[in-house]
Amino acid sequence: MVKVGIVGATGYTGVELLRVLVNHPQAEVVAVTSRSEAGVKVSDYFPSLRGRLELTFTDPTFDELSHCDVVFFATPHGVAQAQVPELISRGVRVIDLSADFRIRDVALWEKWYNQPHGCPDLVDMAVYGLPERNREQIANAKLIACPGCYPTATQMAFLPLIEAGLVDTQSLIANAASGVSGAGRQGKIDNLFAEISDSFKAYGVSGHRHLPEIEQGLNDALPQGEKVSLTFVPHLLPIIRGIHVTAYAKLRDTSVDLQALFESRYANEPFVDVLPKGSCPQTRTVKGTNLCRIAVARPQERDTVVVMSVIDNLAKGASTQAIQNFNIMFGLPEGQGLEQVALFP
Amino acid sequence: MVKVGIVGATGYTGVELLRVLVNHPQAEVVAVTSRSEAGVKVSDYFPSLRGRLELTFTDPTFDELSHCDVVFFATPHGVAQAQVPELISRGVRVIDLSADFRIRDVALWEKWYNQPHGCPDLVDMAVYGLPERNREQIANAKLIACPGCYPTATQMAFLPLIEAGLVDTQSLIANAASGVSGAGRQGKIDNLFAEISDSFKAYGVSGHRHLPEIEQGLNDALPQGEKVSLTFVPHLLPIIRGIHVTAYAKLRDTSVDLQALFESRYANEPFVDVLPKGSCPQTRTVKGTNLCRIAVARPQERDTVVVMSVIDNLAKGASTQAIQNFNIMFGLPEGQGLEQVALFP
Amino acid sequence: MVKVGIVGATGYTGVELLRVLVNHPQAEVVAVTSRSEAGVKVSDYFPSLRGRLELTFTDPTFDELSHCDVVFFATPHGVAQAQVPELISRGVRVIDLSADFRIRDVALWEKWYNQPHGCPDLVDMAVYGLPERNREQIANAKLIACPGCYPTATQMAFLPLIEAGLVDTQSLIANAASGVSGAGRQGKIDNLFAEISDSFKAYGVSGHRHLPEIEQGLNDALPQGEKVSLTFVPHLLPIIRGIHVTAYAKLRDTSVDLQALFESRYANEPFVDVLPKGSCPQTRTVKGTNLCRIAVARPQERDTVVVMSVIDNLAKGASTQAIQNFNIMFGLPEGQGLEQVALFP
Amino acid sequence: MVKVGIVGATGYTGVELLRVLVNHPQAEVVAVTSRSEAGVKVSDYFPSLRGRLELTFTDPTFDELSHCDVVFFATPHGVAQAQVPELISRGVRVIDLSADFRIRDVALWEKWYNQPHGCPDLVDMAVYGLPERNREQIANAKLIACPGCYPTATQMAFLPLIEAGLVDTQSLIANAASGVSGAGRQGKIDNLFAEISDSFKAYGVSGHRHLPEIEQGLNDALPQGEKVSLTFVPHLLPIIRGIHVTAYAKLRDTSVDLQALFESRYANEPFVDVLPKGSCPQTRTVKGTNLCRIAVARPQERDTVVVMSVIDNLAKGASTQAIQNFNIMFGLPEGQGLEQVALFP
Repeated sequence: MVKVGIVGATGYTGVELLRVLVNHPQAEVVAVTSRSEAGVKVSDYFPSLRGRLELTFTDPTFDELSHCDVVFFATPHGVAQAQVPELISRGVRVIDLSADFRIRDVALWEKWYNQPHGCPDLVDMAVYGLPERNREQIANAKLIACPGCYPTATQMAFLPLIEAGLVDTQSLIANAASGVSGAGRQGKIDNLFAEISDSFKAYGVSGHRHLPEIEQGLNDALPQGEKVSLTFVPHLLPIIRGIHVTAYAKLRDTSVDLQALFESRYANEPFVDVLPKGSCPQTRTVKGTNLCRIAVARPQERDTVVVMSVIDNLAKGASTQAIQNFNIMFGLPEGQGLEQVALFP
Repeated sequence: MVKVGIVGATGYTGVELLRVLVNHPQAEVVAVTSRSEAGVKVSDYFPSLRGRLELTFTDPTFDELSHCDVVFFATPHGVAQAQVPELISRGVRVIDLSADFRIRDVALWEKWYNQPHGCPDLVDMAVYGLPERNREQIANAKLIACPGCYPTATQMAFLPLIEAGLVDTQSLIANAASGVSGAGRQGKIDNLFAEISDSFKAYGVSGHRHLPEIEQGLNDALPQGEKVSLTFVPHLLPIIRGIHVTAYAKLRDTSVDLQALFESRYANEPFVDVLPKGSCPQTRTVKGTNLCRIAVARPQERDTVVVMSVIDNLAKGASTQAIQNFNIMFGLPEGQGLEQVALFP
Repeated sequence: MVKVGIVGATGYTGVELLRVLVNHPQAEVVAVTSRSEAGVKVSDYFPSLRGRLELTFTDPTFDELSHCDVVFFATPHGVAQAQVPELISRGVRVIDLSADFRIRDVALWEKWYNQPHGCPDLVDMAVYGLPERNREQIANAKLIACPGCYPTATQMAFLPLIEAGLVDTQSLIANAASGVSGAGRQGKIDNLFAEISDSFKAYGVSGHRHLPEIEQGLNDALPQGEKVSLTFVPHLLPIIRGIHVTAYAKLRDTSVDLQALFESRYANEPFVDVLPKGSCPQTRTVKGTNLCRIAVARPQERDTVVVMSVIDNLAKGASTQAIQNFNIMFGLPEGQGLEQVALFP
Repeated sequence: MVKVGIVGATGYTGVELLRVLVNHPQAEVVAVTSRSEAGVKVSDYFPSLRGRLELTFTDPTFDELSHCDVVFFATPHGVAQAQVPELISRGVRVIDLSADFRIRDVALWEKWYNQPHGCPDLVDMAVYGLPERNREQIANAKLIACPGCYPTATQMAFLPLIEAGLVDTQSLIANAASGVSGAGRQGKIDNLFAEISDSFKAYGVSGHRHLPEIEQGLNDALPQGEKVSLTFVPHLLPIIRGIHVTAYAKLRDTSVDLQALFESRYANEPFVDVLPKGSCPQTRTVKGTNLCRIAVARPQERDTVVVMSVIDNLAKGASTQAIQNFNIMFGLPEGQGLEQVALFP
């Protein structure tokens, strides 16, 4: 059994880790920390866990966490940067769900997150935890930077096209929409039921922090030195979980069999499901699962390719992808604990 | 492995059976029938099952179904009555999720369902599949009549009070509310998103078919010959899954410790969770699970007791309760395949 | 034109007042106050009002408000108690949407609201603004205490029965459910979309502040000295607006024509609509309107009567009822400005 | 008073016409037809209209409809084509909300609607009822072809850019999302609450009937003979009403003040509201109104312009736009009857 600690487990990604880990045959959660709820039984705080977890939230201390084989950070950005060095030095591996180590260009990170980076020395050590790109490095990583939710779904949509050099990289468009849980578990008026329900809007049009992360990921798939230019517009859906990305790109070559390209690219990926031609993926079919479902189309046989990609923002977009990384890191079957089928309806 | 067949798997309770059974370590689904979809791959019809089930819908025939150890009927009422006798005679055990064998008084069934009963001879053989009442008979049953969704939640709320003789049985009130999936997967205008969303209503006030089933179940807990009188008002919630029953009864004795009574009654029940005093159960905490969560209160210390009971109408109210019965019937651990934790949020 | 001021217009009842008043032919909104948003243009804060209101939020001062003919308080409890005396002394009439002056028994108010009453001297002057009970006193009132949302819907359901002496007053049950906007516009985790959507729960079972208000209103319809005993259980609906009360009472006499009783009681009420026998009211049919729709039934012809009553909690349950009071107070047609038909769907 | 008839009033656009017309000071609804509901009182069928409309549905006959000054068709495509010629010949003006007369190229219509056009002779007489383009022709029209919902919102987004010749017309992208009411009031499984709620998907990616209508409208704003090429991807939102279009285009010139361009283009349009720079429109702010709210942005100061445009699909996207046309046709104030403010929340 791998001993697991979770820092910041009172948020949505924290409880999502717990939901899966309590049924994981090789993981034993031994520490769940929260400054604000220290002393409270976890299952009193999250009644969905009643009868399934006997732990109590504790104050985060290095002594407790250093008994873990791995620690997940399910914290706001900035927290992991402060605590990771000490844990790494004590031999604890870290899977960070926050944005702290995702961007390799520290100055770029500081610009978008509007604060000094607290731990620039470890940025190079961090492996970007997208198994579909970096499976081998993940296996040996000491520090995983789990991808953001939009970046996961968006890269999945564009990567086959970019890797194959098939599209104009200067006019990429990602029209993305996310469920409200992506905004976290904070008491903000904007995210009240009465504000969100029965409505829809774009937000962050002038610039969203996931843009540089997506562009970095796509640039990595280009020949050295080339860079994409992406227009990324996120929208807020009146649903709890789910991300839907509609990606548009201009084809350099319209003779390619796009369906075959996507099927081939993801043929060996256990958590990517390319739908049959003519399909449109629904977010509900991946809810609570680690799956990314994708469809590709070329409307009116013109030169614009449309890729639709769906994930659960808290699952493949955060916590179950973190567990997929965990499985790879500890030599476990990659899908262990991740067998759940989405509810229908 | 127990060989399982499912009749009528294109509806919501059918696909819910499949969701759980594809991960059940002791069940092998070998036949999935549907007249309308025969020849269609199940996972094409239900994309949530892509990659998890290779079966194709077939026409229901006795020859195919008779190779099964057990057949689940997830059909509208009337269907099981026509097919069960032949299956039983061939040695196949049957778990019927429909209302066909729930009511022991055939005339009463015919009155409420407004049609002749197609198989009155087998009514006595059927065991009412509420494990919290009939666990022992279930183990040996050839034919299980799975309880309805409202009846499950309502009986759970009243049984401790009725069994203990604590309340006036002539003024019981069950104010119940169900998610829309309870209405099944049929193209009715009344159940369109645009009709249901952002609204709430009662329905069936003059009489709902679950009333005689609930009264029968409660009568069984009374001394021979006594009968309850229940006012049952169902309401339609703009949620997909979930039933919430708010049960009201007049106490004959206000000195009893109601919290202790409920905790004691359900102490050994693996799927009933009595919440701490002062709690109110939320339907979301049982979604996709076989749990019934219950809380009891006595407002203003007056003589009316209020019990709140929640289940997932498609799970403990239908398909996972059927699988709980299945586990009991085949000598498997009662909770096998039913370990899933509800999504939060 | 009647000059109107609104104190505390940044909440949901405040903007609901504005929605209606900008189209009211006899009302001129001249002051809209908010401490936190002073200086902000109202239509910047509420984009639904763009192009319809040029006012800016101001700090609440007596000098400004004393130029008004009437001031609406759309504030949390406690605020009106502090400011109303000065306004009344300056000849300004007050319509208070908060709970400050609803309970005539000051000690009872202090017990339920857990604070000293700030203005006990004016409690006797306040008229409880339920036109269906107090139309004449409202016409001459200087201070209106607008009924709460649950109390409005619940009293409408019970009053015909209580006034006629038809039911046992010691076992009344009101099973109520409200949309989330009833909780106000505050950043609380419990009211986030991700917490409320696709779920349902009871709350405040041990005691809700609207209970003494409802009991006071029903007691007023009893012979002097008699008192009702009500079990009141509120629930939280995943809808924005709407209250549904399902009221239960034991009939002393089952020979009465309940349908005729309700139709007769409300025959002259412009905003109460008694539905035909066999109907169930839907909350959506009253959304944004001042209507209360009601249906009455006697299930199984037994001795329990069931009344279903729906209102919009922000409209007839708060702001449009306040405007109905306003119309009566200023001698205007009672329905002026309140002609809107609910959206369907 | 103008005498109004409505054909096909049992659908969502029909009842939306009625909602507004019962409060319109210059319109008198004299005939409401429906084959299936003939003889039923309209307010029994639509309880939101109880007390506001005394009419009964009648069978559609020319004799009855020819007493009207104007007849609205709120019917599926194909119906108006069959009935309009006779009405026009009897001097009745027609406002058709269906797609029957929107496409001037009859062969194109027949291809997309997959049936022969029933009335090609009148196509040239029809005026496309988008007041922001065709106000003058509308005033004198005998036959109005009301724009579709997606086409209204999409043209509003692109027109200022196209008319000014500012963008590459060969790479236009409209990522659109609609509430479910756009699918009409038919009992289809796909539109059940349990299928739509808490999920999101694209649909019709390979080709949606609104594409040729939008392209026709944009072509009309180009120099003679030029044509746009648009990629149009509609999505289905779990909301009742509302359309949100996110339009993308490549700028030929990045020096233009886009905010000023949009404000200037719509300065005199009573129902188009250009939001301040940096805003994102929300669908809820236009619900039940005739408004189109628009914002324009240029993310990262790159060369892609993003326009967000919201309408209510049943209002400005159908019925209230039809009434705006009606007002213009009969010389009434353009906004008469359309003053309603959207509910908030």
